[in-house]
Amino acid sequence: MSRPRIAVTMGDPAGVGPELCLRLLANAEIAAECVPIVFGDRRVLDAVSERLELPSAADESVFDFCRIGPEEFVPGQVSATAGAAAYAYIQAAITAALDGRVDAICTAPIHKEALHAAGISYPGHTEILAALTRAKRVCMMLTSNALTCSLVTAHVGLRDVPGLLTVARVLDAIELTAEAMQRIRGHDPRLVICGLNPHAGEHGLFGDREEERIIIPALEQARAKGIAIDGPYPPDTAFLATRRQTTDAYICMYHDQGLIPLKALAFDDAINVTLGLPIIRTSVDHGTAFDIAWQGTASPASLYEATRLAAKLARVGV
Amino acid sequence: MSRPRIAVTMGDPAGVGPELCLRLLANAEIAAECVPIVFGDRRVLDAVSERLELPSAADESVFDFCRIGPEEFVPGQVSATAGAAAYAYIQAAITAALDGRVDAICTAPIHKEALHAAGISYPGHTEILAALTRAKRVCMMLTSNALTCSLVTAHVGLRDVPGLLTVARVLDAIELTAEAMQRIRGHDPRLVICGLNPHAGEHGLFGDREEERIIIPALEQARAKGIAIDGPYPPDTAFLATRRQTTDAYICMYHDQGLIPLKALAFDDAINVTLGLPIIRTSVDHGTAFDIAWQGTASPASLYEATRLAAKLARVGV
Repeated sequence: MSRPRIAVTMGDPAGVGPELCLRLLANAEIAAECVPIVFGDRRVLDAVSERLELPSAADESVFDFCRIGPEEFVPGQVSATAGAAAYAYIQAAITAALDGRVDAICTAPIHKEALHAAGISYPGHTEILAALTRAKRVCMMLTSNALTCSLVTAHVGLRDVPGLLTVARVLDAIELTAEAMQRIRGHDPRLVICGLNPHAGEHGLFGDREEERIIIPALEQARAKGIAIDGPYPPDTAFLATRRQTTDAYICMYHDQGLIPLKALAFDDAINVTLGLPIIRTSVDHGTAFDIAWQGTASPASLYEATRLAAKLARVGV
Repeated sequence: MSRPRIAVTMGDPAGVGPELCLRLLANAEIAAECVPIVFGDRRVLDAVSERLELPSAADESVFDFCRIGPEEFVPGQVSATAGAAAYAYIQAAITAALDGRVDAICTAPIHKEALHAAGISYPGHTEILAALTRAKRVCMMLTSNALTCSLVTAHVGLRDVPGLLTVARVLDAIELTAEAMQRIRGHDPRLVICGLNPHAGEHGLFGDREEERIIIPALEQARAKGIAIDGPYPPDTAFLATRRQTTDAYICMYHDQGLIPLKALAFDDAINVTLGLPIIRTSVDHGTAFDIAWQGTASPASLYEATRLAAKLARVGV
């Protein structure tokens, strides 16, 4: 297969996205694996390139929206203009992937308050992707060298988590994760599922028996379909080093159950994959980092790894 | 000060407690730092000693309850008899500490289902200690070489956590942790407090503004009292390596928010300290490990460290 074409969205112009995109385009190893095309604004990229003395982007490497310039926002600050632009890049990248003009998309970070300021009410990328591709079931999976975690629920308040868990939703996360890890690892993966409550509920002592009512039935249905999965384990011992060594991916009930160990153990190589879409989509696992935006110190490691995984998934097929 | 006397409760007789206690009593380094006295049953200790070829306990090292023998339960299985015995050891150790007959207590693991089978409805050690010492405020703190975390809520279902958070409760955890870490570290500690929701609520996008309503007011009251505390940070980035290096202890909103990173990062040296009691109490951070009980393979590292910290706290004073 020729090098896959990856639409890389520039993210919020006021965040670290533009500088990371410039570093990505300048990286020879990435260029050997795929053809990244930044969906963004050339005037913003040029302003960052000049300020940070980074190589400017080649014409064929930028899909220029001619939408926003550096005078229209302040780096590191929320603005509706920047939020609206970031959303436009994502919309266009999704369309390009659905139409087959690119093989995958990889997204730089957006700022949710900027989206909201622009009147766009999605809580995050995953929800935008699900809506615009009309995906019936999606799952956010985070992967790093140390650990891979899929989230049954993600960007919701902690108090809303128990009410959102259903057997169908847990089973979707298991199935989507098993399929994805099969492609990524090249073998049938071994999965672990976490309980919701401390000590996985300790046989009903804590919580509302979510383990017995929801998690275990989903696990049993998954096993009946041939998926190798263990649990539900107490969340605090699920991630011990010995268990990690024999686990390809974890099914986690809520955002921080998966992301706390992932980020504590990973350095800066963690990336985000959206499972269940009709297109391939990866993302950095960090935010816009407004506190260090446009300063040249943000690490491009996560964007590099996200672009590489998008290219790998494009080669092995969805 | 002469060597502090530490009451070490034997834990559930059917678990790993008896073998860990025998190893503790045989350890010369521990004996140089303190005088451990096992609150338990000699017939059980002798049976384990014989089965595993471990040195038997000296008479003066055991406070023998003459309560239960090895023929009355099966190692690795829940029993009411064993649960009732484990509870009796704790009761007596608390009384001994309150009366000044020992300088601190250190507890081996109990099994909550065994307690319940014996008609004792406490969810865990911490709640027993709070009730029997009539402590007005208590806080469970877990500490290891890698990380120290205090829990605002502990052994409750995830769905009950948000409703249990109050400004007073969060402030209690902060104050008790600051006092304890001052004694342990010998300097004013730097604390970090975690948000409850993903991204610490992202300014109200997720959750019910628990960060603004509860956590930030408690943090501000703590600062007004001179405590150095930062946050509330998004839980998933609070435990990054760079942040851990500058943090003496974390204030966590729920059990797994603190215990997932603690156990993922610690090997087996984590221990549990109950703050706010009129007595000094430490504990192993692991359970009864029924799957490996009476087999000789359980690591005594956590009991060693817990006993050492009890001795240290007894020397510096509560």
